[in-house]
Amino acid sequence: MHALVGADMARVNALILERMQNEVALIPQLAGHIVASGGKRLRPMLTLASARLCGYEGRCHVELAACVEFIHTATLLHDDVVDESLLRRGAETANAVWGNQASVLVGDFLFSRSFQLMVDVGSLEVLGILANASATIAEGEVRQLATVSRPETGIADYFKVVEGKTAALFAAACRIGAVIAGRPRAEAEALESYGMNLGMAFQLVDDVLDYSARQADLGKTVGDDFAEGKVTLPVILAFGRGTGEERTFWRRALCEGGQRTEDFSRALDLMRRHDALTGTLDRARSRAEDAKRALRPFADGPVRTVLSDIADFCVDRVY
Amino acid sequence: MHALVGADMARVNALILERMQNEVALIPQLAGHIVASGGKRLRPMLTLASARLCGYEGRCHVELAACVEFIHTATLLHDDVVDESLLRRGAETANAVWGNQASVLVGDFLFSRSFQLMVDVGSLEVLGILANASATIAEGEVRQLATVSRPETGIADYFKVVEGKTAALFAAACRIGAVIAGRPRAEAEALESYGMNLGMAFQLVDDVLDYSARQADLGKTVGDDFAEGKVTLPVILAFGRGTGEERTFWRRALCEGGQRTEDFSRALDLMRRHDALTGTLDRARSRAEDAKRALRPFADGPVRTVLSDIADFCVDRVY
Repeated sequence: MHALVGADMARVNALILERMQNEVALIPQLAGHIVASGGKRLRPMLTLASARLCGYEGRCHVELAACVEFIHTATLLHDDVVDESLLRRGAETANAVWGNQASVLVGDFLFSRSFQLMVDVGSLEVLGILANASATIAEGEVRQLATVSRPETGIADYFKVVEGKTAALFAAACRIGAVIAGRPRAEAEALESYGMNLGMAFQLVDDVLDYSARQADLGKTVGDDFAEGKVTLPVILAFGRGTGEERTFWRRALCEGGQRTEDFSRALDLMRRHDALTGTLDRARSRAEDAKRALRPFADGPVRTVLSDIADFCVDRVY
Repeated sequence: MHALVGADMARVNALILERMQNEVALIPQLAGHIVASGGKRLRPMLTLASARLCGYEGRCHVELAACVEFIHTATLLHDDVVDESLLRRGAETANAVWGNQASVLVGDFLFSRSFQLMVDVGSLEVLGILANASATIAEGEVRQLATVSRPETGIADYFKVVEGKTAALFAAACRIGAVIAGRPRAEAEALESYGMNLGMAFQLVDDVLDYSARQADLGKTVGDDFAEGKVTLPVILAFGRGTGEERTFWRRALCEGGQRTEDFSRALDLMRRHDALTGTLDRARSRAEDAKRALRPFADGPVRTVLSDIADFCVDRVY
């Protein structure tokens, strides 16, 4: 992937740094912190690779990749406020360092910056796709608020949360690659479907990692979702397959604010007993296969192979 | 004003209600709460009146007025989280009822909705103006964080805060009226200048009202800014003209978290002694005059008169 889009990605990183500058010093300070700790830039890479897959030869994909990363970064800032998180990838969150107020406002700033950049690019269709994605993300996050501490959440409802909070931006990031390349609607929809399925697989694997020892290697803390009473698919599966006594346990641990030190290992035991983690992974793998299948309309070649490999990697990172 | 744009304003209100609907029930509940308590719809009215002043005869001004109100509403939701406010216009704030998390996320949703509506209208120029205004608002709010509890903030710095957090959206709301009417740049700039000056006057008067008995009549609480340690122009003037002992008082009351019950009346006394409220009002009046002057390029008529009257009313509401 880096071999294919590495040079473009360097331009994206430079543009992100350039466009987060501001005479109000706190903005670049805080934005720089979250951008630096923001991880692997998967979403902007998807935009770059999608544009490349569609034979795009202009320069706007770099701007649009930066837009996608700004939207992602803004949602991370707001998420950490909403979740009251103190750590992200092993580093202090922006809200832990500068407070919730600054995190909310700098998130708003980055979100606006993203739309300014889109206006510079000048495609109303792209603006529409990313405005829709932004609304869907917020909708998914609000939906998640309603599922927190409700282990009886249905699988379909949970999938709607994930479609919103995670997959919508993956889908949009891929779709806009086809749109700026001026490709026909069918190709834009194929890339959107690739991104949507990849995003679902990505989030489901993230959900598993929060209950997995491998997590610590990735610089994340294990058990955050559990500690926050977040209902994810592993919990939904274990709860649904559990006995009455087990359901009482889940309700007490996740809903009633009475978590004890030993609860997390009990949760892991129950998930093992009911194949909740493997069940979640099966669904992730199935979505990754759907993502790969969505790429079929495109000619075989190095970019398609890389996008296909990303889908596999996304699931394989558990092992 | 209502006679001139009342019918359009009814359409704006209907559109706002329509576009805040969502199958996630919390979104329309929370948005409905803030929209209902949001006050006098001054900003969208400015868009309607500006379009009318420019002879616009289409229907997009209604959509754009709704965009402006959505942006304003989103910033109110985030402001109340940032300020930890419990009351707005005498009613409980959304964060007091539904919590900070929902307020942050529904704010994000409304902000995205605003951009979706703009995309429907399809003017890249308008999108650019409102994206710029949104970034400037966030910038102004972050700038304000840095002035909180610093009574030695300079007047010029404070004006930059107000230009951002308040006047930028007034300016954009007016400018887009000229843009959709296809008027020349000079008229767009004249309306922008009207809005910018009106917004400055509006905020300075708001700052005065927070220290004024008249405030209670308007359904707001008096003394909020003071209680939050917010440094506004009346404080800056009183502090700048104060003795060493008085400055010690301001620092203790606003910065060191040691406010006592009797401090607010002492603050009022000092403001009276140093003409801090009248000094702020003088500046507001001067900005209102600038706003009226900016309207000169436009032919005399009922719309211009109404816009001019709004500038006067904005200052006169103190008395």
